Amino acid sequence: MSESCKFLLSDSQIPTAWINVLPSLPEPLAPPLNPQTRAPLAPQDLAAIFPMELIEQEFSPHPTVDIPGEVMDIYRLWRATPLLRARRLEKALDTPAHIYYKYEGTSPAGSHKPNTAVAQAYYNKRAGIRRLATETGAGQWGSALSLACRLFGLECTVYMVRISYDQKPYRRMMMRAWGGEVFPSPSDRTNSGRAVLAESPDSPGSLGIAISEAVEDAATHADTNYALGSVLNHVMLHQTVIGQEARLQMAMAGEEPEVVIGCFGGGSNFGGLALPYVLERMAGKGPRIMAVEPSACPSLTKGTFAYDFGDTAKLTPLIKMYTLGHDFVPPGIHAGGLRYHGASPLLSHLMKLGYIEATSYPQTPVFEAALQFTRAEGILPAPESAHAIRAAVDEALHAREAGRSKVILFCLSGHGHFDLGSYESYLSGKLLDYEYPGRDVPAALAAD
Amino acid sequence: MSESCKFLLSDSQIPTAWINVLPSLPEPLAPPLNPQTRAPLAPQDLAAIFPMELIEQEFSPHPTVDIPGEVMDIYRLWRATPLLRARRLEKALDTPAHIYYKYEGTSPAGSHKPNTAVAQAYYNKRAGIRRLATETGAGQWGSALSLACRLFGLECTVYMVRISYDQKPYRRMMMRAWGGEVFPSPSDRTNSGRAVLAESPDSPGSLGIAISEAVEDAATHADTNYALGSVLNHVMLHQTVIGQEARLQMAMAGEEPEVVIGCFGGGSNFGGLALPYVLERMAGKGPRIMAVEPSACPSLTKGTFAYDFGDTAKLTPLIKMYTLGHDFVPPGIHAGGLRYHGASPLLSHLMKLGYIEATSYPQTPVFEAALQFTRAEGILPAPESAHAIRAAVDEALHAREAGRSKVILFCLSGHGHFDLGSYESYLSGKLLDYEYPGRDVPAALAAD
Repeated sequence: MSESCKFLLSDSQIPTAWINVLPSLPEPLAPPLNPQTRAPLAPQDLAAIFPMELIEQEFSPHPTVDIPGEVMDIYRLWRATPLLRARRLEKALDTPAHIYYKYEGTSPAGSHKPNTAVAQAYYNKRAGIRRLATETGAGQWGSALSLACRLFGLECTVYMVRISYDQKPYRRMMMRAWGGEVFPSPSDRTNSGRAVLAESPDSPGSLGIAISEAVEDAATHADTNYALGSVLNHVMLHQTVIGQEARLQMAMAGEEPEVVIGCFGGGSNFGGLALPYVLERMAGKGPRIMAVEPSACPSLTKGTFAYDFGDTAKLTPLIKMYTLGHDFVPPGIHAGGLRYHGASPLLSHLMKLGYIEATSYPQTPVFEAALQFTRAEGILPAPESAHAIRAAVDEALHAREAGRSKVILFCLSGHGHFDLGSYESYLSGKLLDYEYPGRDVPAALAAD
Repeated sequence: MSESCKFLLSDSQIPTAWINVLPSLPEPLAPPLNPQTRAPLAPQDLAAIFPMELIEQEFSPHPTVDIPGEVMDIYRLWRATPLLRARRLEKALDTPAHIYYKYEGTSPAGSHKPNTAVAQAYYNKRAGIRRLATETGAGQWGSALSLACRLFGLECTVYMVRISYDQKPYRRMMMRAWGGEVFPSPSDRTNSGRAVLAESPDSPGSLGIAISEAVEDAATHADTNYALGSVLNHVMLHQTVIGQEARLQMAMAGEEPEVVIGCFGGGSNFGGLALPYVLERMAGKGPRIMAVEPSACPSLTKGTFAYDFGDTAKLTPLIKMYTLGHDFVPPGIHAGGLRYHGASPLLSHLMKLGYIEATSYPQTPVFEAALQFTRAEGILPAPESAHAIRAAVDEALHAREAGRSKVILFCLSGHGHFDLGSYESYLSGKLLDYEYPGRDVPAALAAD
């Protein structure tokens, strides 16, 4: 075990291939279904909105996919990201546990999202696409894609949920600084947007509506494609740089994690850290792997494993996943990035197979852990990432109670520089907790 | 010359001593004067508000000062900071110049300020002090000191210029997240604050008033000291970690800078990068060294080299420096950290001796360069740091015109995550430029 607190990799140690777990699955993934015919989706069904190279990655049979040189050139601007041991937090908790965290907030956009945004922009550029359209909630994904598009000379159109557009002006300005065009959604630029506005001119918007607008924009413009920041297999693939680096860095620290933790919305930072460790578990060893959700939106812990739509407006293919129902509207918790009714089908499948466990917390104890972390380690975490901190702290406290050491690794997926209003709410005692009310399996779900 | 774009140091390469240029000066620094007696200040004159170890550093005859282990432990949380070569910016400028930048925005507070905040908190803690009081304008320094105090178990009281307190709520919230108490200044907590409020209940405040409040708070509480984030010799000393690391990293890149550039307010990030290179110049070699100011507040380029007060209210000692007069109120440019009427006496002296040159820019071309930088390199710069980018870009463009290579190094002192409103102003064409009107040498200046 090293005495150091920080484990850095040189440029030559940045992974040069992404890891694909699809061919290693003991049971194959249930295929996405065409929403009209309910027949398994063919790759060409996606060609109107995705470039062929990403569609191939979505279904790839290869255990690794080489990272293109131009993507590597951009990764190198901030990767490898640091792995740190939270020695000051351990001391504050008076725990014998060793707490390590992989910090993805050093990217220019402030989170892990550029890992896939850069790759998606690259493949779209190669396919001759001129513009990408996407949706964003709190703005992490929209800013990552705006940056990536700028670096490859693509235009970027972001449909931002109106309430976030109004409440989080800095994220919107960040996208504009990188040359992205940002519209509050519902907008009058699409049929789906206009339909909502006609019925409800003051609609605050939702991720579901924004997805519909971005997909429609892409599908109706030949030079424009759509990009998604989570859920899909190719997104999980690109994010595996996180876990690959973390494994090298844990080896530098001379330790093996006993538990690997990530916050969970659609699954992209969690999958990025976890998937290389899932392969270890498939080989009969490896750590416990824990996804951490908000209690207000507990897809994995309280959802149903079933075919459902990815969006509220039922435009997407049907995918088999843990879901609260595509009509579920999560309450307005501060961790906007975790407010998704569904979950990555790949990670859902792995959970069903027992490789992954899940837990959930209300936001008050999450912010309590975030404060404890920033006051010990300095870095101010995003509310999303703070869910992982809460679980890591509890694992460390259990180790103290049990009087034994434990090696804990979590992903600190982003900084909270644009989330300080939520810290202020917590400090002023104004934070509300929401418990998932429980609901019948939504009638709208397709049959399992 | 390396093909890489990023030069990282291991923990064992972080400097273990600060560099003090005072004993190498060819002519000694003019001493600070007691404002009442005009006699040179004795160290004990400062003992009411600073701990003795910092006072000793202020006048130290030693060429280096060892960095204490507990300070090193905290530096290691984010230091060494990266040095990057801006290859994508070079390409965008179509220049044969090589542009390197030292990026200090990876600290938890987002700038170079923690380099001295951590040291100051440490020495105050050792002196048995329970609380530090300080002022802050835009909030960079107040947040750095709040973090440093938290890490050493000190309380921190920040007097924040009221207009910034109202306009930059995120910086205030960041201080609170780290446990700092923040008061809008003028406040009713001090005689100086109450005096201002009595005359002008709606006063927007000023750095001068906030300094008076913090100094009064410290001077009237035995368990409380004062901390300053720039100008003083011990601050410049602590910041030399920047330049020391940069020299090692430039050696890794296999290049020597021909010009070294930093933005200039009080002088702390500029001095931190420049001072190790000043020693080279004293040895008859070394690069050009350029300070970059806002045209709206051009202390070095248009000020007078004379004894003047450090604050508006004339509470501080008289220091010999380039000054626009302690009664000069700079216009409200977005680079709030560069709105200081004076300058570090050490750096003023070095400029007078010819080791340093200075230039100035209005804010519109500064933001133009900031946009060009972030769209090429990703990182979103603070408006202050963007002054250095502007000058670096112009040096690179001169190299293109001259058809020759040139190695340029600048300090990117912080990120602009809390300054996006100013980017929005620039993008909407609403940014105003201010030129320094010129003024007679203020009558209030003491005789040179």
